[in-house]
This record gives sequence, structure tokens and C-alpha cells, in this order.
Amino acid sequence: MRMVDIIEEKVEGKALSDEEIRFFIDGYTKGSIPDYQASAWAMAVLFQGMTPHEIATLTDAMEHSGETMDLSAIKGIKVDKHSTGGVGDKTSLALGPLVAACGAKLAKMSGRGLGHTGGTLDKMESVPGTNVFLTPEQFIDQVNRIGIAIVGQTAEVDPADKKLYALRDVTGTVQSIPLIASSIMSKKLACGSNTILLDVKFGNGAFMKTIDDARELAKTMVQIGDDLGRDTRAILTDMNEPLGFAVGNALEVQEAIATLHGQGPRDFTELVTQAGAIMLCQAKIATSVEAGRKKIQTAMQDGSGFQKMLELFAAQGGDISYLEHPEKFPKAAYITPILAPRSGYVKAIDSLEIGLSAMRLGAGRATMRDKIDMAAGIVLQKKIGNYVEQGKPLAYAYTNKTGVEEVLTQIQAAFTLDENKVKAGPVVHEMIAL
Amino acid sequence: MRMVDIIEEKVEGKALSDEEIRFFIDGYTKGSIPDYQASAWAMAVLFQGMTPHEIATLTDAMEHSGETMDLSAIKGIKVDKHSTGGVGDKTSLALGPLVAACGAKLAKMSGRGLGHTGGTLDKMESVPGTNVFLTPEQFIDQVNRIGIAIVGQTAEVDPADKKLYALRDVTGTVQSIPLIASSIMSKKLACGSNTILLDVKFGNGAFMKTIDDARELAKTMVQIGDDLGRDTRAILTDMNEPLGFAVGNALEVQEAIATLHGQGPRDFTELVTQAGAIMLCQAKIATSVEAGRKKIQTAMQDGSGFQKMLELFAAQGGDISYLEHPEKFPKAAYITPILAPRSGYVKAIDSLEIGLSAMRLGAGRATMRDKIDMAAGIVLQKKIGNYVEQGKPLAYAYTNKTGVEEVLTQIQAAFTLDENKVKAGPVVHEMIAL
Repeated sequence: MRMVDIIEEKVEGKALSDEEIRFFIDGYTKGSIPDYQASAWAMAVLFQGMTPHEIATLTDAMEHSGETMDLSAIKGIKVDKHSTGGVGDKTSLALGPLVAACGAKLAKMSGRGLGHTGGTLDKMESVPGTNVFLTPEQFIDQVNRIGIAIVGQTAEVDPADKKLYALRDVTGTVQSIPLIASSIMSKKLACGSNTILLDVKFGNGAFMKTIDDARELAKTMVQIGDDLGRDTRAILTDMNEPLGFAVGNALEVQEAIATLHGQGPRDFTELVTQAGAIMLCQAKIATSVEAGRKKIQTAMQDGSGFQKMLELFAAQGGDISYLEHPEKFPKAAYITPILAPRSGYVKAIDSLEIGLSAMRLGAGRATMRDKIDMAAGIVLQKKIGNYVEQGKPLAYAYTNKTGVEEVLTQIQAAFTLDENKVKAGPVVHEMIAL
Repeated sequence: MRMVDIIEEKVEGKALSDEEIRFFIDGYTKGSIPDYQASAWAMAVLFQGMTPHEIATLTDAMEHSGETMDLSAIKGIKVDKHSTGGVGDKTSLALGPLVAACGAKLAKMSGRGLGHTGGTLDKMESVPGTNVFLTPEQFIDQVNRIGIAIVGQTAEVDPADKKLYALRDVTGTVQSIPLIASSIMSKKLACGSNTILLDVKFGNGAFMKTIDDARELAKTMVQIGDDLGRDTRAILTDMNEPLGFAVGNALEVQEAIATLHGQGPRDFTELVTQAGAIMLCQAKIATSVEAGRKKIQTAMQDGSGFQKMLELFAAQGGDISYLEHPEKFPKAAYITPILAPRSGYVKAIDSLEIGLSAMRLGAGRATMRDKIDMAAGIVLQKKIGNYVEQGKPLAYAYTNKTGVEEVLTQIQAAFTLDENKVKAGPVVHEMIAL
């Protein structure tokens, strides 16, 4: 078998055989197939696409390119969720404790933030002492004891994806639904849970700009999950404004705490409730989404969700006095209001710009080598549909940096005001399941 | 400027700027742009194409990626020709001396054979003593003295093409008209002649399988030449059977000699006459193709073409007694007739199969490291339209190898016989000029 023949078949639009796909992933992971053939193949896939069967085979081959987590020592159905990444997306911090409080088992591997999007591990580390690196034994034991653990991926999971993702990033082959879907799903499948809920975001702050693209990606991933024997569902959620009000690590943790106390932002509370309800259905704890929503709402009202958050952080070494007394989180040296240049209704908020601005204030990384300032970020005061008077704050910028005037201007420019009333849309648009 | 952005623009189908194209070729030649970005770019070009202006810029950038020949020290118009490669294509060996005998200046750089196609340099070296490596000074001096020199390319010409061509060969990006056209033309332009005649072959033994593809390639190359200020014309010629009768190095030299004596095969004589006539027009020696044809025919009849061949080989150290007495060429140890399995008219000859069979008999190379047997090859006895009786020879196989029975069977299978009369088509189908 020769890689050049496999590339040529894809150029001609043919479906590759299972053997050809496994030959490629195996050879590329081992290094016997060079980057220049992999990038040509990826570009041919970008133009010619892949069949559902090809995508499932590719995903399976990538999943098994390295170590996979064996969660069989955890009793019961293991649920998992994955977000395609957004701005202000602190979902796992509230959703995880809620579903665990309702009895689900969440053995979750998360990532770090890059560019305009944050990462769950960074947010967790804003609570002093929190350790996100457990051994597999510690990880499994913790889920068995308290129902939840959130940790970083080990280096050995899905090496094919690591290599191919880095290559795609520099060869113009990122925007291929089969390659995006197989990249996400191979990592999630390698993490070993029985069910997966995908939060596929669309809009100006998301990787997928339109709901149509998000739907196509979601359907492709749900199909992969089904083909490979996991209960996989997806929700399409709006990222045309940041999720909730807070953007930035410690700021988002505080918003997650408020949400677990039943005092969260409307959109974020709704997303957590709906996503949690679906996960409870996947865990066979709820028999319908409506029943699942009631359980999640109860866990917010009776404090059991917040108690589970305390258990989670305590188990991973975090100082839970910060969670109990959020005023203990260090405050940024400079908290600057961003004022409305005129009165009107907020019509649009450029989430990408808000995310990048938060990064520039210190809350994120331009490259993986950058350090994060846990106190930095942005807290919106107005969301789409809200009315603001001229000179009143649209948001507050939190930073320990000086000389960020340009960033403050960019935050202001991220808001579009209109004199006419604007109606805010729903946050969760559709559910995709087979 | 970043290569990934250039790739993404091409993915989106945009035309690249001159600066972007030069940035790529410059960076790729120097090694600052890696193979994996170049292959992704080439694949995007394969799907999205390039505008005529982009192709001209790419060709110009490649031409100037290394040394270019300065032929200004040669008096008069310098003509050149290039064949896209076929089976039995000994054209330069007869055409070169004929146009030089008529007064044109031909300072030609040629290549070696690979796979099913032969190379002019190999054929010349079948005449003992012939040296195909001259210094630029020797090369220019020889053309000034006798009007013709045929040499190998130096290593420094068009390094961008060498690198990109090798990469395309292993990344499924060969079949892109803009990349084929710029590859051929950048090399030819770097060789410094004023005019170029392109012999673009189509059919089962050619790189382009259909006349439509050949026409598109020819038009693209003629346009490049015009954009870059060289009188460029093309002919589309039939490679659905080998050219002439002889395939193999010394065998083809002997057929070229016969042609210069006016005793060549019909199709080969016609190709040489028509191509020579066009080159004489380009050299301003003939005022019409018809007048050019008369001059070429005269040079065949009066022996001046053959005299020029003797001058050419003598100047490059060849033992011209072989040309004067072709019976001196070493004979292959085994000369085996390939017999017609039944009576009929020859309807088709698979040139690719004949070329590969000649290679297997020792006449060609599977890789550039292989050695060539100058005496090996195939001499057809029948061409398309000829009638053959069962048991009579279709061809003779010449080889010094034993155990080639399978090859002999393949040669026989390359002929398709039909009981109905078959009419042979023309060899030169169209001329393309602006």
C-alpha cells in the first residue's frame, strides 16, 4: 500500500477502504508517512469530503492511535460532555456538579484556553491548590467516591490527532467537517465514557459561524458516536454573544458558583439546565428531558449542586473557602467601566472581539507558552435585548495591566446599539440525536 | 506574510498576488517554507486552479529561482522545442539537425528517460564518445560555430521546479494543468531561447490521455510564453501508437538517420517536417509553414540535415563512423519476433505498454539509478491501419536479457487486431498559437 495512491483516490473523490485509512493513521502516527503527504491528504479531504463510514473508521483509528481510558472500574453509566469552544463558556464548572449531584458519573478530561476561548482547567486552577493532574487510579477512584473528576488529558491520548491537528493548523486544512468531527470525537471516545453530549456552538464567537455549519458538524459527530457504539447527542447553542456575563477565569468561577446557588445569568442557567437534563436522560436517571430539567433545577435550589462543587474541588486539593467566600478571589488592580457611547438597545455583541479583548487584558493566551492572570477579564453589564443609557456601563474590564486603552475601545466597539427594541433569542436552538 | 494565509486564500478560490506567489517560491526554494505547506498549496491549486496571470507569475518566479542561461552571445534568433514525452520520440535527433541545416540556432537542453519514455541524452550517448555535458562557454561557442548543441541541464537551473516536482510526484498533485505548465515552461524559459515550440502529445502513451487535456495544457503554456515575452507555439500530436517504428536508444538513432536520408517512417517524417517548418517560421527563416516544410524537405533530400547531424555529434566527441555505418551499432543478443495471434488490421497499439516493455527489455529505467542497455528495445513491423497475417511479425523485441517471456507476451497484447479495415489518423492534429 502506498500513501500516494491513497491521496490520489481521495483526489478522484473515491471512498477509502478501512485498510487504507488505518494504514494512513498508523503510518502517520509512527512517522513512516511524512507530513507533506498527510497535508496533501487533508487538503484532498477538505475538497472531496468523506463518507460517514470513512469518518467513523478514521475516528476509530485515531482513537486507538494511543492509550484509551478504561473506565470499566467505575460503576454505572459514565457520561461526558464536550463544548466546541466559546467565550464565557464556564459550563462544565456548573453542569458537572449538577449532574453528579443528580447521580450521574462524570469522568471528564478537559483542556486549556487558547486565543479567544478559555479552558476549564485554567478556570479550575483559579481556585488555589486545585490539582488537575491525577493518575488514572486516582481519577477512577474519585469518580467512584463522589461521582465527578475533571482532569487534564495525558500526553498519550490520541497522538494521531495531536499531530494531525498541529499540521492542519498550518496548512489551511482546518475547515473540513470530517476532520473537525473526527478530531473531536476520537479524543472524546478515547476518554472512555458511555455517553457524550456535544455542545456545538455557532455565531461570531464560535468556530462554526452559522447554525447550518454547526448542524452539519453536530450531525456528523452524532453519527460517528452512533457508528462506534456510544449514545451521542448534540445541542446547537448560540455564541453570538458571550455566555452569561463573566469572561475570565476567576470571574467565571464566581459566576458558576452563583448559578449553582440559583442566581446565575438567564442564558447560562438555561444552557446548564437543558444540557444537564439531556445528560441525565443519557445516564438513565431521567426518563424525559422535562423530568431531567426538574432534577437539575432541584439541585440548584436545594444546594446539592453547590455541595458537589465543593466536593469536587476538595477532592482535587482546591481551597474551597474561595468557593464558599468568593470575595476571597484576588481582585484585579484596575476595574474600568466601558461606557455606552449613546443610548439604545444592545443589538449585537461581537463575542470574538470580547474574547480577544479578555485575552489582551491577561485572561488568556496568544500562544500555549503565555501565562494567565486569573483575576483578569470582562464582566458584561448588558446583553442582547437590554437597554442602556448613554454614559452608563456596558461592561467592566478587569486587568492588572496598564496601557490597555486600545483594548477598552475594542470592548466598547464590540457592542452594537440600536434605537429600536431588540428581542434576545434562545441560547439552546436544537437538539440533534439519532 | 504567512504561508498558511496564502494556502487559505487558494482554498477559498482567490487569485494570489504576485508578492504571495514569489514569497512562496522564494521561501520554498530556500527551505524556509516546509514541504507540508507546499504540498497543501499544490493540492489547493489542483482543485481551485490559477488565473493566467498567476500561472505566468509562478512560472517567472520558478524560472528565476536558480541560474538562467544567457544566450545573448549567440547571434540571431535562438529556437527551442520541447516534447511532453512519448514512446519512440526521437524527434530532436532528426529535427535539430534539419532546422540547424536550414540556418536556425538551436541551443537545446534535454533530459534523460524514465519509466516508459526515453530521453534525448540517453539516445545521443548510444553513439560512443558523445559528451552531453558542455560548459556554458563550450555550449555557446558550438551553437555559434555549427548552429546546434544538445546538452544536459546543469544542477543549478530551476531548483524550485526540481523540489516542487519531486514533491508533487509523491503527494497526488501531479495532474494540475497550471502546475504542469509552469513546471515545463519555467525550465524552458530558464534555458534562454527566444522561441519555443511545444510538442504536446496525447493518447495512451502520453501524459495527457485526451486531445482536450492536451489542448488545455498547450494553450496554458503558449499563454505563459506570450505573457513572458517569448514566441511560443504548440502542436498537438498523437501518441496512441509509438512514433515511427523504433523504440530504444541505438534503435531510435538509426531511425533518425534513416529519416535524415529521406527514408523515415511516414508519421515521424511528417512530425519532423511540420515541427521544423514552424520552428523555421519562428526563426524568421521561412515566411510560412508551407515554405518552411519545403526547406525541411530539401534538407532531407540534399543530405544537409544528415551532414548537420554528423557535425553535431563530431563537435560533442561522438564517433560519427557509427552514424555513417549504422551497422556498427552493437546488436542485441536476442532478437525475437512477436507474432500476430490471428490475421487482421492493426486497430490500436498500447504505447504505454510498448514503452514499459522496452524498459523491461533493458532500454529504459524504472528509477534514475538504473543502467540502460543501448541495444535493447522494440522495432514495430506494423502500425495502425496495417494488415497482418496470422503468424507474421507484429514487432521484434531486442534484448540482452533472458527470461523475458512475459514481456514478449505483453508486447503481443499491446496490439489490437480487427477484421475490418482501419484508417490511420494524422500525427499532427492542431497548431496552437496566439
